[in-house]
Amino acid sequence: MNTDEIEWIAADWGTSNLRCWAMSSGNEVLFRAESDQGMAAITSIDGDFEAALLELIRPWLRSGSRIPVSACGMVGAKQGWIEAPYLSAPCPPLTSQISAPSRSGNIDVRIHAGVKQLTPADVMRGEETQIAGLLATNPDFNGLVCLPGTHTKWVTVRENHIQTFRTYLTGELFKLVSEQSVLRLTTATEGWNESAFLEGIHSAFDAPESLLSNCFSLRAEALLNDLGEVDSRSRLSGYLIGQELSGALHRANPDEEITLIGSDSLAETYCTALKSLGWKASIFPGETAILAGLAAGRG
Amino acid sequence: MNTDEIEWIAADWGTSNLRCWAMSSGNEVLFRAESDQGMAAITSIDGDFEAALLELIRPWLRSGSRIPVSACGMVGAKQGWIEAPYLSAPCPPLTSQISAPSRSGNIDVRIHAGVKQLTPADVMRGEETQIAGLLATNPDFNGLVCLPGTHTKWVTVRENHIQTFRTYLTGELFKLVSEQSVLRLTTATEGWNESAFLEGIHSAFDAPESLLSNCFSLRAEALLNDLGEVDSRSRLSGYLIGQELSGALHRANPDEEITLIGSDSLAETYCTALKSLGWKASIFPGETAILAGLAAGRG
Repeated sequence: MNTDEIEWIAADWGTSNLRCWAMSSGNEVLFRAESDQGMAAITSIDGDFEAALLELIRPWLRSGSRIPVSACGMVGAKQGWIEAPYLSAPCPPLTSQISAPSRSGNIDVRIHAGVKQLTPADVMRGEETQIAGLLATNPDFNGLVCLPGTHTKWVTVRENHIQTFRTYLTGELFKLVSEQSVLRLTTATEGWNESAFLEGIHSAFDAPESLLSNCFSLRAEALLNDLGEVDSRSRLSGYLIGQELSGALHRANPDEEITLIGSDSLAETYCTALKSLGWKASIFPGETAILAGLAAGRG
Repeated sequence: MNTDEIEWIAADWGTSNLRCWAMSSGNEVLFRAESDQGMAAITSIDGDFEAALLELIRPWLRSGSRIPVSACGMVGAKQGWIEAPYLSAPCPPLTSQISAPSRSGNIDVRIHAGVKQLTPADVMRGEETQIAGLLATNPDFNGLVCLPGTHTKWVTVRENHIQTFRTYLTGELFKLVSEQSVLRLTTATEGWNESAFLEGIHSAFDAPESLLSNCFSLRAEALLNDLGEVDSRSRLSGYLIGQELSGALHRANPDEEITLIGSDSLAETYCTALKSLGWKASIFPGETAILAGLAAGRG
């Protein structure tokens, strides 16, 4: 491994994972590394964030030199390495970072601030950096951004500012309901049927007040009409995401194109749902967003 | 204990509990007994429903005579003592019962059929007996009936028939979200603030599409605005029940009085919510309903 070209290190440090990239002076990716040492795992042991980071990036370090590490995510939460106080929306996505205390002489860690919103109350840590990456790549971007995940964010971006945003518990609720409610008895833990998913999307988007009865109906459909376990899983996902879309797009301009930031099949699932409902949607790659955002944050 | 006056035994046998009443020939309650030997507990061990029943009611039995037991609930499900095939709505609530196989010569057990609905798919087991009890007590009843619980039922009753019904996953979802989602970190497991609950009710009733973002906001309110844990619990309950009410009353006549069947604080909570939204609501006691229904079912 030739580490001479490493100029800085990018770190996306969330609740569940730590992802690092060794970057060149031209912001090219030289090496990648990933571990399950997210904030939750570290706080549950000894809270030693520095040790977890060094364990992952040690092969990239050079004795006698101090390499900048640009980080974002839950690592800046109150329970994280050091609290990076929230920016307050409306605001540009990246204007503040804080130095993390360190024992090693080989790293200089800066953590980006998250963004809060007082009314309605909401918070993000990490997504603001992806928005900054989107803006760094498309300086004139104005529009509605969706970042699908366990807690999906919908962000209105205007004039290089995060204007407003809302977080939806959709992904977490899908996991709880499909694995732990009475639906678990007749719902698969994997597999996918797109037409069942889209049925759920349309039904929930048109009648968001029916979410809780729609959920129970999946159990009844399995008992009475032999609804399959994969169909049950797909339809449930449709009910939950459709309910979210109904809320997120309630006051949106139907001509607006929605930008999904993400790299996994979930972003594609959202894209399929939005297009099926007649919205324009496109995907901006999540890794591109995070790296461009962390690069932009280095100033 | 004088068991001479016991004419028959009433049994409400659900997923979690078995409740029995020793009844006189005039349908007065002589004795009560209750155990945690619900369907789930029994099927997880040896599936011996008769043994669980006899353990609870043995003191009421007389040698040399066979006492009728009138039962309803999940005991008649496919995984229960014996499957009592569903009636199909629209239908009168009680028209069919099935004899349970028994080794003892001292009991003669009949289990009432539940009710199914094909479109939208839904099922009930036990609630139909409570509806029958309501109708036995109020023969001219027509209206909307709500049976709050883990899976709350809303039933339209016309001309002594269950016309249509819907089941809402509300209670089960409240438990999962408050105890297992990210909200658990800032949500109490007990305690109540009625004004926070009613805030949640009105917010969700007026904007059912906002459920999933409202849920996450409770976490953000705790982080940013010091929302208390009891307030978080109460508001979450309001969001979920308000969402349910929005669905259940979507097409209802606002002049209609809603009859809640129940005996616990949950029925009162629903009653408070409905009145706060401007609906007329009253509570019919759950035990009265089940006993009148089981008595009516004896024919």
